[in-house]
This record gives sequence, C-alpha cells and structure tokens, in this order.
Amino acid sequence: MRIGILNSGGDCPGLNAVIHGVVGAADQLGWEVIGFKDGFEGLLPPGDYKVLKPKDTIGIVKLGGTILGTTNKGNFAAKIGKGNVSEVPAEIVAKAKRTLDQLEIRALIIVGGDGSLTTGLQLYREGWPIIGVPKTIDNDLQATAMTFGFDSAVSTVVDALDRLHTTAESHKRVMVLEVMGRHAGWIALWGGIAGGANVILLPEIAFSTDKVAEVIRQRDAQGYHSTLVVVAEGAKLPDGEIVTLNENTGGEVRLGGIGEIVAHRIEKLTGKETRACTLGHLQRGGAPTALDRILGTRFGVMAIKLAEEGRFGRMVSYQAYHVDSVPIEDAVNQLRVVEPDGEMVGAARAIGISLGD
Amino acid sequence: MRIGILNSGGDCPGLNAVIHGVVGAADQLGWEVIGFKDGFEGLLPPGDYKVLKPKDTIGIVKLGGTILGTTNKGNFAAKIGKGNVSEVPAEIVAKAKRTLDQLEIRALIIVGGDGSLTTGLQLYREGWPIIGVPKTIDNDLQATAMTFGFDSAVSTVVDALDRLHTTAESHKRVMVLEVMGRHAGWIALWGGIAGGANVILLPEIAFSTDKVAEVIRQRDAQGYHSTLVVVAEGAKLPDGEIVTLNENTGGEVRLGGIGEIVAHRIEKLTGKETRACTLGHLQRGGAPTALDRILGTRFGVMAIKLAEEGRFGRMVSYQAYHVDSVPIEDAVNQLRVVEPDGEMVGAARAIGISLGD
Amino acid sequence: MRIGILNSGGDCPGLNAVIHGVVGAADQLGWEVIGFKDGFEGLLPPGDYKVLKPKDTIGIVKLGGTILGTTNKGNFAAKIGKGNVSEVPAEIVAKAKRTLDQLEIRALIIVGGDGSLTTGLQLYREGWPIIGVPKTIDNDLQATAMTFGFDSAVSTVVDALDRLHTTAESHKRVMVLEVMGRHAGWIALWGGIAGGANVILLPEIAFSTDKVAEVIRQRDAQGYHSTLVVVAEGAKLPDGEIVTLNENTGGEVRLGGIGEIVAHRIEKLTGKETRACTLGHLQRGGAPTALDRILGTRFGVMAIKLAEEGRFGRMVSYQAYHVDSVPIEDAVNQLRVVEPDGEMVGAARAIGISLGD
Amino acid sequence: MRIGILNSGGDCPGLNAVIHGVVGAADQLGWEVIGFKDGFEGLLPPGDYKVLKPKDTIGIVKLGGTILGTTNKGNFAAKIGKGNVSEVPAEIVAKAKRTLDQLEIRALIIVGGDGSLTTGLQLYREGWPIIGVPKTIDNDLQATAMTFGFDSAVSTVVDALDRLHTTAESHKRVMVLEVMGRHAGWIALWGGIAGGANVILLPEIAFSTDKVAEVIRQRDAQGYHSTLVVVAEGAKLPDGEIVTLNENTGGEVRLGGIGEIVAHRIEKLTGKETRACTLGHLQRGGAPTALDRILGTRFGVMAIKLAEEGRFGRMVSYQAYHVDSVPIEDAVNQLRVVEPDGEMVGAARAIGISLGD
Repeated sequence: MRIGILNSGGDCPGLNAVIHGVVGAADQLGWEVIGFKDGFEGLLPPGDYKVLKPKDTIGIVKLGGTILGTTNKGNFAAKIGKGNVSEVPAEIVAKAKRTLDQLEIRALIIVGGDGSLTTGLQLYREGWPIIGVPKTIDNDLQATAMTFGFDSAVSTVVDALDRLHTTAESHKRVMVLEVMGRHAGWIALWGGIAGGANVILLPEIAFSTDKVAEVIRQRDAQGYHSTLVVVAEGAKLPDGEIVTLNENTGGEVRLGGIGEIVAHRIEKLTGKETRACTLGHLQRGGAPTALDRILGTRFGVMAIKLAEEGRFGRMVSYQAYHVDSVPIEDAVNQLRVVEPDGEMVGAARAIGISLGD
Repeated sequence: MRIGILNSGGDCPGLNAVIHGVVGAADQLGWEVIGFKDGFEGLLPPGDYKVLKPKDTIGIVKLGGTILGTTNKGNFAAKIGKGNVSEVPAEIVAKAKRTLDQLEIRALIIVGGDGSLTTGLQLYREGWPIIGVPKTIDNDLQATAMTFGFDSAVSTVVDALDRLHTTAESHKRVMVLEVMGRHAGWIALWGGIAGGANVILLPEIAFSTDKVAEVIRQRDAQGYHSTLVVVAEGAKLPDGEIVTLNENTGGEVRLGGIGEIVAHRIEKLTGKETRACTLGHLQRGGAPTALDRILGTRFGVMAIKLAEEGRFGRMVSYQAYHVDSVPIEDAVNQLRVVEPDGEMVGAARAIGISLGD
Repeated sequence: MRIGILNSGGDCPGLNAVIHGVVGAADQLGWEVIGFKDGFEGLLPPGDYKVLKPKDTIGIVKLGGTILGTTNKGNFAAKIGKGNVSEVPAEIVAKAKRTLDQLEIRALIIVGGDGSLTTGLQLYREGWPIIGVPKTIDNDLQATAMTFGFDSAVSTVVDALDRLHTTAESHKRVMVLEVMGRHAGWIALWGGIAGGANVILLPEIAFSTDKVAEVIRQRDAQGYHSTLVVVAEGAKLPDGEIVTLNENTGGEVRLGGIGEIVAHRIEKLTGKETRACTLGHLQRGGAPTALDRILGTRFGVMAIKLAEEGRFGRMVSYQAYHVDSVPIEDAVNQLRVVEPDGEMVGAARAIGISLGD
Repeated sequence: MRIGILNSGGDCPGLNAVIHGVVGAADQLGWEVIGFKDGFEGLLPPGDYKVLKPKDTIGIVKLGGTILGTTNKGNFAAKIGKGNVSEVPAEIVAKAKRTLDQLEIRALIIVGGDGSLTTGLQLYREGWPIIGVPKTIDNDLQATAMTFGFDSAVSTVVDALDRLHTTAESHKRVMVLEVMGRHAGWIALWGGIAGGANVILLPEIAFSTDKVAEVIRQRDAQGYHSTLVVVAEGAKLPDGEIVTLNENTGGEVRLGGIGEIVAHRIEKLTGKETRACTLGHLQRGGAPTALDRILGTRFGVMAIKLAEEGRFGRMVSYQAYHVDSVPIEDAVNQLRVVEPDGEMVGAARAIGISLGD
C-alpha cells in the first residue's frame, strides 16, 4: 500500500509534525509514504516527490516550515468558481491523476487551508481518494475546535509584546503591534490577553482611533504612561476616519498596514510618541510549540486511520479534546470568527482591555 | 467591597496570571483585592497580606512563581481526615476567620490543588464565602478539562528532550528523562509525543524494563542507535524487577528516582551507554506559556464573576473551550488519569512509541 | 555616602544589570544609591528619583528595559555644539546641580550613548563628579571592545532569521530582514553569520542590488531557491539606483525603510517572490542574554569602584576581557565601524556570504 | 584537493557551526570535504564517512550536537601516556593512515578537547597533516581566550536559575543547582552572576557548607528568605566535612553529586527547605547561542585557512577578539582555571555573592 501527502498554501508551524505523524503511523502499518513537493505542483508529470521513511522524519517535529515545500499559488490553487466551488481545469486534473495512477497512490492526504481543501473536494468528487487535514494559522475554521500553528503564532505575538512592553515602559511610549488575522482576530485576541495588551483591535469589532486615543489619555491621567496596542491585519478603520497616509504610493509593495496607520493616528490624536511594529512572516516561521507539535502529530495519525478505513472525502477535525473527522464538504467555506459577546472578549473587557469600541 | 485571594500548595506557572485576572476584573467593578501571603498562613492573625492594585500586577502575567508566595505544608494544609474530608482544627479556623472579619472580606478566592480545595470546602461548609480556582500542574483534575501550568510544564519537558535528542544522537546513547506526574502521566505523555520520545513510561500503564530493553535492541538493529525514554516520576517497576540501587542509603535525601533506576537497568540489560536526567523543579519554575497565561487570566476573571453573583462553594472549571464553574464538592478527590485506551495513547502507539508494555 | 545613577537615550538590554551591579556593589560599601527617573530629566527640581536598595533590584537582571525609565530627547540631550561639544544651557545645568547638591550626591553615574556621555563630559568639566558607563546596542564605540545589549540584539536577529529561514525554504522565497545599525553594521554582520544569511548589506561596504540579484540568480542556478538577505538600517543604495518607492508619500511616518526598498528591487530584478521584515523595536526589548547580564553587572561594579577611588570623568570600558576605564574625553565621538578587510568580514566571504559588492 | 574533518569527545553546542564553516570555506576554494563519523573511529578501515557539500550543511548551524557523531572513548582516545603524551598504538595509527591515504586526504581537521588534541599532536608528529580546533564547553583552555559551547552552556544555566528563582521565592526555599565544570568553575561563575545566584561554589576556591549556612542565616535575618546556590560539579567539600550520604551505595550509577550533598548539608545546618537540581546533559544539548554559532563558524574558516597555507600541527585559537592559531604542542595540557583574585570573582564578591569562603 502506498499513500501520498502534500502541503498546500502558506506555511504554518506544525506541518512537519503532521508529516511525522503520517509517516510514523503509515510505517507501523507497513505502508509507504510518498511526499509530493511544493503542494499540488508536485503531482504534475513527471512528478516531483520523495519517499518518506521514518528516518527521514527524525527531528523534524521541532522544525518550522515543511520539509516538502509548499506553493501558495500555482496550477491548482485559487481556481475557485461560483458558489465557492473549486474549478481546477480538467487537463490539469487529468495530468496529475496520471502521476497518482503511475505511483499507485491509494490515498492522498492534503494538508491545506480552506482553498486547498476546496480543491481537494473537487478532486474527491472526481473520484480521488482524498483525505484533508486542516491548516489555518488563524484558527478560523468552524469545523475544528483548534488547528495547529495557532498556538505557535500566539506565542510569537506574546514574545513580541513582552519585548515591546519593557521598551514602552522605559520610554513612556505607545507601541502598536500588527499581527496576522485577515478575517478573524483570534491571534490578536489571544496574543493580546497573554501579552498584557491594553487595547486590542479586531476585524470583528468596529472601533475608532478616537476611542483608542481617549483610552490612552485616560491611562495617562491614571499614571499609566505606556500603552500596548495589538491590531489584527484585517482590522479596519471606520469610514469616518480619513487615511491619507498611502494615497499616493500606488506602489507594488504594500506599505502602511493597519498597524502603521493606527500608530500614526494615535500619535496625532494624543501627542504621545507612538511606534508601530509588524510581525509579518515571523509569525509563520519558527519552531512549533509543544501543543502544535502534538496536535499536528495527532492529525497525521488520524489521517492514516481514515485512509486505513477507506473513509475518503473527510477532513480531520478536533472536537471536544479528541481528534475525529468530518466530511470536507461540511468543513469548507465555514469561517469561525471572534464572537463579540463570547467569553474570551468578555474576559478581555473584564480586566479593562479596550476593544476600541 | 473587598475580596481576598491566596495561593496554596506547590507553585505552578500561571498563578500570577490568575492574580492578574482577579485584580483586573475586581478593579473594573471598583472592588479592592487583598492578597494573603504564603497560602492560608497569611490569614492567621495579625494577618500577612497586601492590597493589590492593577499597577501591582503590571508585567506579572509573564512571571513564574507567585507574587503572593505559597506554602506546601502548614497550619491548614494536609489536615485531611477520613473520607478525604479536611479537618483543619477549629481554633485555627476561628483565628483565620477573625482576620477575614476584621478586613471585611466578602469573598475568598483559593487558588490551590486538591488538598487546598478540600480545605476550602471545609471552610465553605463552615460558612466562609469560598471560591476555588483549580491548580494542578499535572492536569489531573476530573472536573476541569484543562488547568494552567500544564502546558508550561510540557514545554519545559519538550525543550529538555530537544536538547537530549541532539546529544543522544551524537553519542548513540540512551537518554532517560524523568518528569513530573505522581499519579497521572499526562506530562510524560504529552511531552514525550511532542519531544520525539521513543519510549514513554506512565503510572497508568504497567511496563517492564525488559520490554524497554527489547525495544532499544530492535531500534539498534534497525539502525536507530539512540533512544529517548521519558518516565513519569510516579511510574513503577513491576514487582518482579529487583531494584538494589538504593537499598543501603537510608538517606534523608531522595536519591535514585525512577529515572535513574530505569537508566541503570537499561544500561545493564542492553550494554548501551545510558544517562538519566531529572527535570524536577525546573518544570514548576519559569515563565508561563501563552496558553497558561490566558487560561490563568480567564480563571481569575471567572472567580470574580462568581463572587459578583454570590455563587460561593464553587470552583472555576474549563469545559468545552469555555470557562465555567462546578461545585467544589463535586470537584475534589476526582483524579483524571491517562486512559490506556484513549486517543492520545493510541496516537503514541500509532507512530511507534513504546509504552513499555 | 550617597551616589546617583541615571540612564539616558534609547533603551538597551542590560541596563537593569548595570543598575543591579551598581546597587549591589554600593550596598557592600554601605553607600546609598539614588536612581534618577527618565534620564537627566529626573535631575530637574524638585527631582524625580527613588532610593534603590538591593531588594529593589532582585530579579531585575533578567528584565529588558530599565526600571529607571529613560529619555531620548529632552532638556539635556542633543545639545551638541560645534566640535561635538555638548552645550546644555547654563540655567538647566544650574537647576540640576541644585538637586544634586541638596541630595548630597557624591558621584553621578551616567549610563548612556555617545550623546549622553558628551553631556556627561560637559558636566564633568563644570565640576560634576561624573562616571560614564557606555551604552550602545550597536557595539560601535571605539573605546570599549564590547558593550552590553549587542549580544541580545544579535540573538533577536538570529531568532528572526531562524524563523524566516524555514518559511523561505518552504516557499522558495527571498526574505529580506532589516536590522539595527545606522552607522555600523555589526548587528547585521554578526546576526547574518550566526543566522545563516546568504547576503549581508552594511553601511560600511558599498553594494548594489544588481549585484545582489546576480547572487540570487546564481543560487537559483545551483539549486538554492531561497535566499536570506540581512540589511542594516543604515545601508544605502548606490546613487545610480533609483528609488521611486516613497517619492509621493511625504508622510510623517517613515515608510519604506532600506529593507523594503531592497526587497522591492530584488523582486523586480529577479522575478522571485520577495518579502521584507523589519525588526525595529523588537531588538531593543526583551530579556538580556547571559553575556549582556554579566557585562552590565561588571560595568556597574566598575562604576562603583571608580566612585570609590574618586576617579571622575572616566568611562567604564571593556579591554582584553577585563573591565577597566578610560577618560570620557578620549571615548566620545570615536565610532568603531566594521572594517571591510577585517577577520569577520573575511569569514563571511570565506563561507560564500555575499556583501553585495 | 580533499580534506577531512572529525569531532572527538563530548558534544558541545557549536560543533555544527565549525562543520558549517569548514564546508563553506572549503567549497569556496573548490575543495571537497570528507566528514568522518563518530570521531577517530570513522578513520578505521573501511572508513565510515560522508562527503559534505554546502547543501548538507544548510540549517545545521542552529542545531546542537554534531551531524558527524562523536565518540568519547574508543580505539584512539584516552591513550595518554607519561608526560601527557598520547600513545595510540602503532597498528591503530597505521590502519587509520591507510584510510587517509586511500581517500587522499591532504589535511585532517580534528575538533576536540585536550585529550583529542593530544592524540592529534601524536599523529602530527608521525607526519599527519593535522589541524586542531579546540572544543571545551568549560572554556578552560589556556591557549584560547574563548571556546564555542561555553556561552550556550552558561545560557542554559541562566535559564535554569531564572526558573528556580521564582520557585525559590514563592516557597522561601534554598535551591542548589549543580552545573558542569570538573576542573574549572567558569560555567558556575558566569552562570551564577548572570542568573542572580547568592552563593557560587567553585573547584578553585575552598569553601565550607558551614560558611554557606551562615550566609543563608544572615540573608534570612535581612528578610531574604530564599537563596540560590550554584555549585560546579568539581567543587569539593573540605576534609573536615563528613559526607555519609553515599557511603553504602557502592552503585555503578553515580548518585549524590556535590549538588545533592551541599543541599543535604544546608538543610541540616539551617533547617530550611532545600532542593537540589542537576543540569547534567541539558547543558551540552540544545541550540547554540548566536555567539557560539559565530565563534564555531570562524574557527572552521580559520581551520581551512591553515590548511590552505599548509600550516599543520597548529590549533585555531581566539586572541584579542581575533581568530588566529598556535602550535598544538603549546596548547595541550594547559588548563585555564578561575583566578580567585581575578576581576570576575571580584565582581561577584563586590555585589555580595558569597564564594562560600
């Protein structure tokens, strides 16, 4: 028996743990694992892959990135049609299928985000033996209570806040940290609470920098002269607040993310020295935390179990502290965002953290 | 309104996060918080305590230990009678009550383990306004799905295994790491999976060093010349295996824990160079992980909410990803141990980790 | 005997270690230490300070920032006249002197960079009992072989490169990391070598992005599809290379630092996906490394020794692995930059690192 | 041109950086590098080795251990005769020489400690093209001002002390940490100063536990109820102090190191709860610090430079912040121990650290 595995989309701490789990569990069953390189691209003839044996995975559980490589865009990804249906062209699918057939791959494990899993769903509907493993560093998939990579990203945010905290205190400054989270503010919310942020700005909760400035002024009045602001990259200024900062750049490089904009406005409104910092790719790289290593490993083990049981078209999922599975079609396109009235937001408010609203 | 808080029992990463959550949430309600020093001892007249204001808790969320101090033994702890009922002498209780009354404490938050909560239950039954916050680094309390400190302890174990891994590989050695877990092997199990252990020995699963030696020999035969063994301090050799190591010491200092014993036997049985390492107190100290900081903070916030609602005799608890509460009397004396047939043990076995059985 | 200490200029890991060393050593002599807040500003009447006893410094050695606070600009700093002579106005000096006299400060330890030490020199020449402790995270002071904070900053850079390395490899990208170093490229050079950078761009060595692009193309041809570029913030594009990126912003916030510019050009020249990351303030914050804690402590101890011996107008300095001192006037305005022909640059070139020249 | 490299003796953070430097620098010269496995053993026919190309060393600079493996004892090591002259038997040398000749190795780089370099000296005298790179985690070689691995070991000690500090404070305990250093106490001294130890016990300075107990009692009287003690493994109790702890074990496993003995005595003498912790192998493993990565890389580069210049029989050395070389025969058997009157010990005493004397 021979199975395949590939990573697709942005990298995420814990990908190697999944590979480790898959290879370890397959080996116990006497199966051979083929790792396709650079996402779906590795499927294209002549096929770019390597056989993965347990000794190839020794020590990888602690490494960031993925030993298989991954591709964000390419011949497969981002071919999403109407109704969020993946529409990878038939000739691409056919070519890839030939590789699969030649290698006699009996199950193909796709470790990817919403888009990649949508592609997986298309392939499954066309008869491929697909098993999905969810990958979203933002932890924003409805169908699983937790995804690997999130805890590592939060840890990176917290480490950054710990650093900014001492420098903010020493200089009586406002420090603004922009973190990942285009649609869901989980990283900002968790990171902000753990890192002692005073203000957390999320895509899910409308805020204004006027309000943030007011909070900073109040803090100053109470003797707290430094303030830590965490802002998710997907957070948006209200329509009323004009942003002139970047209007003329028209550049190809994205400048002046929300973090810099918020910092700029705070400095203007409060007169306090304000500095912005954008974590960017530092959040994706780096060694996975213990939690993410374990979750990734368990996900990999469950993927093999699904293969063993011939349950294709399913995605591994974490539910009530156990790893289980759900149909891929029930999982894709279901975002889980921060509930403005949830316990976590409530806890933040309860200890005096402002959400800028 | 004035409330009190105390820590009791061994220290645990996240204690300061609980204090941070309690003080932050109390301050938002306009309440004053009194922190009693060194556990219940701080209650004894004339009372050893300090007023905790938000500025006293700036930056503590990232610190290990507890700013209040704690006591393992003392006038209150370890007075457990028949049926696991706490029996702190009446005169001690009466003395402490006077301090409480004089300070007009309307709620007393006890952050402690099973023993301390049992004491809390006694006090609650005698009319004290007790609220419990569970503290067990071993994560072995049935009434809560997760406790703070555990993730930090696992991280420390994983960091140690990462270190031992490179040295084991370089020297083709067997390395044995003894970790915490007297009754429950969760730390060994989680830490071992995340740290790439090859053998994990738990209190819950009977093992033999003969079996472990066999695993090591097989690994050697397959070309894996180094082996990482994690053993929980509460794991026990089977009766048939004689341990002569310490028979004559009679010392007051505990020597030759299970880690050293297992290492000694492996070296004898396999002839391979084998070294033991005991993590000990390094697991309790150190900065809490992001997860533990958040969990501790949320526990603290919930404790204040219970106080606000006048729901005494309850213990904060984590259930289905939300922080809630349960009656203390339903929580104490209910150990949660590793299920030998659970998914986690299954995942370990699935990737070829030996449980020594 | 009573002495004073103040920090001045940007914060730097190890400042608290200096304070720890000063307070510990003064206490052994039975002296009292007054810590002035927020740099020289704390000297202005009525004086903003606190008495520092050993118990106030317990545990601070591991903290970033400074418990005394610091000021970058203010009434004292940046008053540099012709010939790099400090010209703090007479009335400011007189006011501050009154505070010093009232408190009977017999020695004033100034922990600061070149500008602050120049101010210190002025004060010394006006009769103040000044002792200088050098503080430059860039390690670019000629008069001392090493300064605290540098090793911590390099460690932060290396940690970032380790993270970017895995993500660069997984995605076959070019990653550009901008690090501190306005005049001297030490942080970029040390960090780049330790972090496995392929290209390091310094203020001291003229480079061109055409050359960098050429290196990246060669690497691609050799099968190395990812490249790590470290660039010091003070590195400059050659005149011939046009930068249109920011021409229209006219913004008050500095956008498009050299890192983003270099990344933009590389992407244009090579067609490879290229991302920039700017570490910024993350390099100043955070816990000092062991080395910086020790160096800071030793510097603090030597400052007290100079005070004890009445050797004012001198600056603590590290020479041939020993802490000693030099006259402040010989130390200021003497930058130590990277020698293009030095052993470190040679080592970088020897292992194939490109300096972009 | 083809050269060889091998590691010998205990592993040490930075070994992979040396390999990285050697391979990178050799590649720039167009040379091929042969890495012998498991120390000198890899030289024995038929030879156990692998060709090392730059792509084999990508990312290894950050890994602990050594990708070549090493051997502590074996056919070569520990054959030290009178006058500290290495006496590896002629037939072993002859066998190994055949491997060298067959592979046409023009230079053999030995990365090892005092014993391995002594063997290297013997081989050089018998005509081998030997180049030595010093490796001692204890930093106790007279002929080089610094060796890689030391900074990493100190960092591990400091991390442990940071952890023990919070738990000691919370419980008002004495914590004793035993660290590496059989002959020289540098790790204990540096680690202790950086980690905020109150007592440091070294092989070089005679101490008594009576004196240590006195220090602890004084601290208690001054309100400091917790004490951190660092003790080097080679520190020794004075003759007058009886140690009965282990007299009857006669065990093969070393129990009750100096750390446990000192803890035992302190508890007896002071009545304070005292716990011991032994870092052991955790100090050797783990990722090298930035400093050790750089030093290792520079050492590797210099080794290739010596090979290029045909300067055999020399050992790489760090002098006055530059990497240079010295004759191996001047380097071996010259221990550098802590000077009791040196500046570092003086700094420790100056801030009130007791040396137990």
